[in-house]
Amino acid sequence: MKKNFLLTPGPTPLPPQVLEAMSRPIIHHRTPAFQAILKEATEGLKYVFQTTSDVFMISSSGTGAMEAAVINLLCAGDTALVVQGGKFGERWTEICQAYGITAEVLDVEWGKGVDPLEISKRLKANPKIKAVFTTLCETSTGVANDLEAIGKVVKETPAVLVVDAISGLGAIDIKTDAWFCDVVVSGSQKGLMLPPGLGFISVSAKAWKLVEASKSPRYYLDLRKAKKALDKTDTPFTSSITLIIALNEALKMIKEDGLENIFARHRKMAEATRAAMKGLGLELFAPSAASDAVTAVKLPAGIDGEKLVKTMRDTYGVTIAGGQAELKGKVIRIAHMGYIGEFDIILGISCLEKVLQQSGYKFNLGAGVKAAEEIFLK
Amino acid sequence: MKKNFLLTPGPTPLPPQVLEAMSRPIIHHRTPAFQAILKEATEGLKYVFQTTSDVFMISSSGTGAMEAAVINLLCAGDTALVVQGGKFGERWTEICQAYGITAEVLDVEWGKGVDPLEISKRLKANPKIKAVFTTLCETSTGVANDLEAIGKVVKETPAVLVVDAISGLGAIDIKTDAWFCDVVVSGSQKGLMLPPGLGFISVSAKAWKLVEASKSPRYYLDLRKAKKALDKTDTPFTSSITLIIALNEALKMIKEDGLENIFARHRKMAEATRAAMKGLGLELFAPSAASDAVTAVKLPAGIDGEKLVKTMRDTYGVTIAGGQAELKGKVIRIAHMGYIGEFDIILGISCLEKVLQQSGYKFNLGAGVKAAEEIFLK
Repeated sequence: MKKNFLLTPGPTPLPPQVLEAMSRPIIHHRTPAFQAILKEATEGLKYVFQTTSDVFMISSSGTGAMEAAVINLLCAGDTALVVQGGKFGERWTEICQAYGITAEVLDVEWGKGVDPLEISKRLKANPKIKAVFTTLCETSTGVANDLEAIGKVVKETPAVLVVDAISGLGAIDIKTDAWFCDVVVSGSQKGLMLPPGLGFISVSAKAWKLVEASKSPRYYLDLRKAKKALDKTDTPFTSSITLIIALNEALKMIKEDGLENIFARHRKMAEATRAAMKGLGLELFAPSAASDAVTAVKLPAGIDGEKLVKTMRDTYGVTIAGGQAELKGKVIRIAHMGYIGEFDIILGISCLEKVLQQSGYKFNLGAGVKAAEEIFLK
Repeated sequence: MKKNFLLTPGPTPLPPQVLEAMSRPIIHHRTPAFQAILKEATEGLKYVFQTTSDVFMISSSGTGAMEAAVINLLCAGDTALVVQGGKFGERWTEICQAYGITAEVLDVEWGKGVDPLEISKRLKANPKIKAVFTTLCETSTGVANDLEAIGKVVKETPAVLVVDAISGLGAIDIKTDAWFCDVVVSGSQKGLMLPPGLGFISVSAKAWKLVEASKSPRYYLDLRKAKKALDKTDTPFTSSITLIIALNEALKMIKEDGLENIFARHRKMAEATRAAMKGLGLELFAPSAASDAVTAVKLPAGIDGEKLVKTMRDTYGVTIAGGQAELKGKVIRIAHMGYIGEFDIILGISCLEKVLQQSGYKFNLGAGVKAAEEIFLK
């Protein structure tokens, strides 16, 4: 009888419309019926990406789409600037290095956003930099970067701006075209409310020139093949049929709601979560650049984050995320992204209060929930 | 009210158990609950692959797993022998070429199986060949190759044997270990009765030495990362949670049925399909090496295969496959693989008879169905 609730920053919960779509008998991918769905889903993705450029779908996790960005734009001997302020910034560096691409690292303290001026300085100092890799929402720290400001800096240079928006797309604003984000990468299991297994990548005209010039060896992730297929409303290899059908349902929900409303909802959930943490006397990990998709919270001395997450999940059925890499055990992360609503946040905070109380941490029981309620009432 | 039936060689129909699993609320992948499923599914894959080696899961279409085989085993400057007797043999060559690997092509007439002696000769003639790439069931032509005989030839050399068993695994026999198939690649949407989106790859100890030595650049498809994760019952990147949960259900069904029974069922469906085609006066495309997973049939002069497939699908709801590449319009392909049973074959033949009759082709109405029924009665 234990009910389970998912408040993790990927996967996020699946709406009933998506679950229903996943349970339909499968159809063949090279049929007019599927092509119509692929076409509609591709248009829907452009709406969410806020772009008129092509958005390609790749059957892979988000990392596959990140690798597609790196190898289609650059090749061995090229230089990239990587903004590294968490685990997923580091992933850009690792992928570059695997392909012999020099990754100049712009180290940002975990929990802080990158200063666009620093990017500008580095670009001026090294005109060989062909691409800047950064993160919209660094899931590992709960930081959101100011892509609008970063885009203004990078567009003045020959370099392209590449954004890991795996966490964030469909939850917080990213105006791909208006903010000059040349390549935006995303995944299915976050703001798009789907299971993991689909990657997405948009490519501007400026970036497409690099795609045509890159000498990196590639086949499965070759965007030239993806482009050729997309122009015929197809995918280069067997489509992830079921996930794409489900994607189309999720995109219909997003369009019906409207991006502005969705962003406002996420903003409110984030504010409520942050207010609740303050109400419990807990400190935010990224107070100066907090993302509206996920909140990272420092734990008081003596409270083991791993154990807390385990108790919330295994005893009470509420799954939040712990810290990754150097933050393991030190922070917890509560997602407010995708198919998560106001009362999911309330129950998550309530469960956190219960376990904190049982752990001996001193606070006013109910103070977290009350602070969140106050925000939601506004 | 039109009922739809799927008789294509990928995707194949999904069992209700799989559809149900796909519609369950999602769980997080880094939890004991998911780990238990991943462990069970990995063991189940070993049963189907008939191997004690590791079988890795990759979130990708089958082609992603093929690329993983090529780049983890070989790198630029290496030489491979590729058996090329259809569209999917050609894919091995294309992937090799994309990475600067010399692909020596062993051309086999489309519709024929490869002669293992030819492989032996080529291996003797060029000791630089490090890997032999071939296909279990060449879906484009309906040919099954004799992997047992090929394995005997290759195991006597330093080369490794790499098999594309995307079509075929779980439908026709492939004894990975006993037949010395060093690397076997498969996909989810064929004999395994799942939607597309998961690739699988088994690696023998002999092949693993090449994995450690290969200098091909790689990240997402790096099997060293996959191995490190699998040893901790994990995947290197976010797992395709829903597909893996569904895979586990499909594998339970396969284990319950037993591989020998499954292979016998496929053999009988294939025999019935072939007998039916003979009964209709149609010629098999691959009479000397017919696969028990899919049957390719030549069309009589004056019958357009593309139109026939379209009419069967759009007018009567029965989806079979047409010809690919040079066989476009010239053959049809009827799958008898995965969650397809005796009476699916009967209805497929009946629909084919209906459309052939309407097209003006002369034959005894009912002769195809009768011939199939005779086989099924045996």
